[in-house]
Amino acid sequence: MKSKTIALLGCGTVGRGLVELLRKNRDHIAERSGVDLAISKILVRDLKKDRGDVDRSLLTDRPDEAVANGADVVVEVIGGLEPARSFLLRAIDSGKNVVTANKALLARSGAELFRRAAARGVRVGFEASVCGGIPIVRALSSGLAGNRIETICGIVNGTCNYILTRMAEDRLTFDAALAEAQAKGFAEADPSLDLDGVDAAQKLQILAEIAFGTSLGPDRVRVEGIRGIGEEDLRAAQSLGYSLRHVAIARDLGEALDLRVHPALLPTDHPLAHVRHESNAILLKGDAVGEMVFHGKGAGAAPTASAVLSDIIDLVRDGSGAVHLPEPSPRPGVADIESEYYLRFPVLDVPGVIGLISTAMGNRGVSISHASATLVRGTPARGNVTILAHRCRESVVRRAVEEISRLPILTGKPVVLRILEVE
Amino acid sequence: MKSKTIALLGCGTVGRGLVELLRKNRDHIAERSGVDLAISKILVRDLKKDRGDVDRSLLTDRPDEAVANGADVVVEVIGGLEPARSFLLRAIDSGKNVVTANKALLARSGAELFRRAAARGVRVGFEASVCGGIPIVRALSSGLAGNRIETICGIVNGTCNYILTRMAEDRLTFDAALAEAQAKGFAEADPSLDLDGVDAAQKLQILAEIAFGTSLGPDRVRVEGIRGIGEEDLRAAQSLGYSLRHVAIARDLGEALDLRVHPALLPTDHPLAHVRHESNAILLKGDAVGEMVFHGKGAGAAPTASAVLSDIIDLVRDGSGAVHLPEPSPRPGVADIESEYYLRFPVLDVPGVIGLISTAMGNRGVSISHASATLVRGTPARGNVTILAHRCRESVVRRAVEEISRLPILTGKPVVLRILEVE
Repeated sequence: MKSKTIALLGCGTVGRGLVELLRKNRDHIAERSGVDLAISKILVRDLKKDRGDVDRSLLTDRPDEAVANGADVVVEVIGGLEPARSFLLRAIDSGKNVVTANKALLARSGAELFRRAAARGVRVGFEASVCGGIPIVRALSSGLAGNRIETICGIVNGTCNYILTRMAEDRLTFDAALAEAQAKGFAEADPSLDLDGVDAAQKLQILAEIAFGTSLGPDRVRVEGIRGIGEEDLRAAQSLGYSLRHVAIARDLGEALDLRVHPALLPTDHPLAHVRHESNAILLKGDAVGEMVFHGKGAGAAPTASAVLSDIIDLVRDGSGAVHLPEPSPRPGVADIESEYYLRFPVLDVPGVIGLISTAMGNRGVSISHASATLVRGTPARGNVTILAHRCRESVVRRAVEEISRLPILTGKPVVLRILEVE
Repeated sequence: MKSKTIALLGCGTVGRGLVELLRKNRDHIAERSGVDLAISKILVRDLKKDRGDVDRSLLTDRPDEAVANGADVVVEVIGGLEPARSFLLRAIDSGKNVVTANKALLARSGAELFRRAAARGVRVGFEASVCGGIPIVRALSSGLAGNRIETICGIVNGTCNYILTRMAEDRLTFDAALAEAQAKGFAEADPSLDLDGVDAAQKLQILAEIAFGTSLGPDRVRVEGIRGIGEEDLRAAQSLGYSLRHVAIARDLGEALDLRVHPALLPTDHPLAHVRHESNAILLKGDAVGEMVFHGKGAGAAPTASAVLSDIIDLVRDGSGAVHLPEPSPRPGVADIESEYYLRFPVLDVPGVIGLISTAMGNRGVSISHASATLVRGTPARGNVTILAHRCRESVVRRAVEEISRLPILTGKPVVLRILEVE
């Protein structure tokens, strides 16, 4: 039996989850994996703060004691960019294998961390950075390593999915559903990161980097959040036979990479259409395995701690293998995709408004499969015109919508959502 | 860039799938994983047989040339117990890492292979032995290594699932659906291994051994196949709101292990109720991650080759780590489980037959939630009495059914199916 020690940097939700999980399953892990794991130091900022039943003798507020001393593995669960980045780099430079759950840091500085780790001959575990307990990093980097991954399509932000599920199924308002997600503890501290799609974009970047074997860096993902989605969009989607979900999509198109997160309508037979509440699910398409779906809990202290612990076990069990460093991708993003669309125009309820908008769409090269209008009571009468457009280039649709939005009958910003296909 | 060579033992469906996949993705793998893989030898029995566009200069019919010479990894895709076992043991003894897709061999001789590999300091990759392209072996042995796995519930035999799906959805007969599965190439060469549950039991044994960190050996799984299932059972299940599926279940009950494969009724909100045709899916429950589902293609040349290739890449990338050897499990199987039940009694259509059987069940301690009868035209009139029983011990139900089956109104063997619960 090997004995191995862990230096834990940070003791927030995930850190305490790890302490607890290791306390509960230490013997079980020793029996199954042949390694006896113990936490030897916990770096905290405030030694006096209450930390439940964490062993206080392990706490230190001096980074040197935890980052570069003694322990076999250094685990970073502080979050944020600094000092997490500096601590990890110091641990790597002193020859430690490291584990991090920090997707923001990986999205920003992953290439730097991996380069330094490769130079020093140590490894970086980051299973916990994407989709909590679902072992998707391993699936992409190891389990499907013989495949060319063609598509990743995921529901990777539990907060957005919870809000959209509750609005659709239980007619909650956006604000009420968000408040619930926050109360249940799976919204990010700053909900903007969830609602504006930033969290999903960081996860997608990390997954795409593994899947496509390339370094992308931030700002390569086109990002749309869910703040523009109204209750009327969820009702319309439902009545037209779709689920409205916030999705993260990465496609290898050969010459280019298509990387985007945005709300979309999913046909009911789409593999992700029935992913509900805070669940996460990822659909992968590989050239050998075909379509595969992983479904589970994407966040929370215990699932995230589980992912951190799985990395620790792998690192101490297998020793340090060489890391292969991917090159930055020279491939451009996709300027223009093709898709079907759902469009909603908030309008004054003047006679002939469906005809007016449908004709305007047609004149601008967008072919329509459905048009309907709903009336909102009030004076003056207002309503929404809902359009489903046949497959066409996004630039064409955007231009048409922009022109129509200048018409005097419009009372607000049009909503444009892509409709996903089932292959 | 490392260059590594593969000796391939066998050149059937999976072997040729591997040759083709490696030809297609060799550059892609080199770029992503930093290893250049090449097949250096292919052991076949018949040098003259047509093998498509496999490079004939690699073929040999002399085991020594492939098993213990030169190559970095030895891959066994012969199938069956011998000579696959002897070849693998020789490769291990000569210090080779090995990969096998052979679930029958692993179920029978896995402990022996792992012991020898540990003694020699080499590793055995076996991702391809269970559920083809789904990386479930890695998920259990690595991705969820920090968890105590409480339950595995899987649809792991594509042939059974295909037959049951086609019978239920398209009213095919058992024989017609089986013929289709064979024509599509995902039934085992000997369909008895599928239909009688042997294939599913071997897969379950392998998964349970990883999940529970123990060596089980064959004959620990209680096995029922699908040959007893009639079209009337599929119709009845449907009309009562269930899917009829062949499932593989492993539960860690602390003192004992519950290991069984059998047909069962799944409520429509069960995570596996909508797994259709030849798809495989596995529901896992871990103490930290909660419920997780993996869904994908469980068989076929390309998905299986993908799993074999992923093992090869891991072995040559990470070098040889120590293997932890699980101990044989002293824990007994479960003598008696509790469940709800679906029962069908083929009967003569005599008046009062529902009352007769319901009363007989009640007298023997089985409480009933539903009873109905269907008539089959003919002389004498025959029919089926269908019963749903409340949760009770299986021994009690079996005893009651046995006694009732001696009544003179019975015209055939009763069908007894468990109903799964949604947690």
